[in-house]
Amino acid sequence: MNNDQIWIDENHKDSRYGLKGKLVVRKKTAYQEIIILKTFEYGNALMLDGCWMTSDRDEKYYHECLVHPALSNLSKINTVLIIGGGDGGTLRECLKYKDITAIDLVEIDEEVINLSKHFLKKVGGNSWLDKRLKINICDGCKWVKNIKNNYYDAILIDCSDPSDFANGLFSTDFYKECKRILKEKGILATQSESPESFKKIHIEIIQSLKSIFKTSSTMYAFVPFYPSGIWSWTFASNNEKDFLIPKHNQIKSIENSCDVWNLNYQEGALKMIPNKILKELFKQNTND
Amino acid sequence: MNNDQIWIDENHKDSRYGLKGKLVVRKKTAYQEIIILKTFEYGNALMLDGCWMTSDRDEKYYHECLVHPALSNLSKINTVLIIGGGDGGTLRECLKYKDITAIDLVEIDEEVINLSKHFLKKVGGNSWLDKRLKINICDGCKWVKNIKNNYYDAILIDCSDPSDFANGLFSTDFYKECKRILKEKGILATQSESPESFKKIHIEIIQSLKSIFKTSSTMYAFVPFYPSGIWSWTFASNNEKDFLIPKHNQIKSIENSCDVWNLNYQEGALKMIPNKILKELFKQNTND
Repeated sequence: MNNDQIWIDENHKDSRYGLKGKLVVRKKTAYQEIIILKTFEYGNALMLDGCWMTSDRDEKYYHECLVHPALSNLSKINTVLIIGGGDGGTLRECLKYKDITAIDLVEIDEEVINLSKHFLKKVGGNSWLDKRLKINICDGCKWVKNIKNNYYDAILIDCSDPSDFANGLFSTDFYKECKRILKEKGILATQSESPESFKKIHIEIIQSLKSIFKTSSTMYAFVPFYPSGIWSWTFASNNEKDFLIPKHNQIKSIENSCDVWNLNYQEGALKMIPNKILKELFKQNTND
Repeated sequence: MNNDQIWIDENHKDSRYGLKGKLVVRKKTAYQEIIILKTFEYGNALMLDGCWMTSDRDEKYYHECLVHPALSNLSKINTVLIIGGGDGGTLRECLKYKDITAIDLVEIDEEVINLSKHFLKKVGGNSWLDKRLKINICDGCKWVKNIKNNYYDAILIDCSDPSDFANGLFSTDFYKECKRILKEKGILATQSESPESFKKIHIEIIQSLKSIFKTSSTMYAFVPFYPSGIWSWTFASNNEKDFLIPKHNQIKSIENSCDVWNLNYQEGALKMIPNKILKELFKQNTND
């Protein structure tokens, strides 16, 4: 191992997932500690407060599954809200839809964007220059309160795990505001944690969205460098008809552009609920 | 961290996956180094030659997906061959099928069985006492050569990654012998590595089985403590009709007994091929 190579681990209970590389950034902001590690196999990797968020190699497993089930579900998209997403990966996937006219990206920590623009060029790339994008440095919970009713076609919540400043993004108050500012046929997508490593919050997110929206559904798929490797995304809407049935006219070319997601993968991921989580959700439903 | 707690990592390229616990076994056999670590969150965990194989908490993600897609596909099962499987997890899942009359478990390294019986009681448990079981300490490649034609209903290959002594279990010669000793409606199941961490061998296994058997299909699902968290299992048969369509009469109770697998999960996992692997397999096919 070269002298400048170090291991940085995400610790989770009795397990750790580490990457080896050269430390290029370690910075404390008002919100969190940001680390960027340059690795040989995984490219540059971003860690926030001890949790791996993005690496050049693995990020598509996450970003493609947050964006495409939601956006491909819409036949026409004008306005999109991204909450979090400071690495630029969610933005990049959104910009593939040519009919989008405006994207608000609301990130609480400006430093995540600044460092990602510089060190994670493979993730965001030229997306940061797109004229449809407006960056807003602001708490997502506050942002949604100031938006008029029926404004967005899609809301994509690309946040980190619950913490002092991210807790609000998992609250029922926040989801109710999202419902209010979504158009009638609009769709909400959120990362909904790992059913294996963060079971309690995972189930809470699902139950909250189910209680607030007319319809919701959860997808389980792979994110190699998140705890347990199993991740989930939950989609919700007030438009029950054709929910998660793809209808956007660019679907074929978007499928072709993806490393991980395609319609078959999505269909599979919607069924991949581990039996023990299924039993737990069913138990909670019957207790309602 | 207590004084007796240590980290043991599986290293894979620039990444590592570690568990923290008390070292209870570190032993070098004629074939490999065996480590057993006692952890608080994951129970006891088994490592062979630097690779995590089994932990009390995570093993069902692997074993249920190797066994049930294959055995539930048969309407009647008499004889089963397990190659490898020295931890007892595959055996335990097989024994749920009451019509099975004989299981040959062929493991090359007796020490894996001895240590698993003692330290991984949650994995194998009382399965080791079942009268239908015959343990054979032998190289799987040699074993299959001495079996008569049309003998087994199912062959389950539960082996470690390719290595000096395990390479043969990924060869076309071995698969041809398996085909010969399977009954007409029999089915072969093998773990087929990670499409993300071991892409080359993963694709080779799929192509080999496809070229030898009349039909084959690959399932992608989660194994939290294997490299990348994405694992695969490939099933093959000469009976194209109703391939991987469940028909065993115990299916409902077996689904209910499982932590991970159920028929819906299986159906999803058969679609969960990441787009880039799909493209790679397609490219290889058109090059044939």
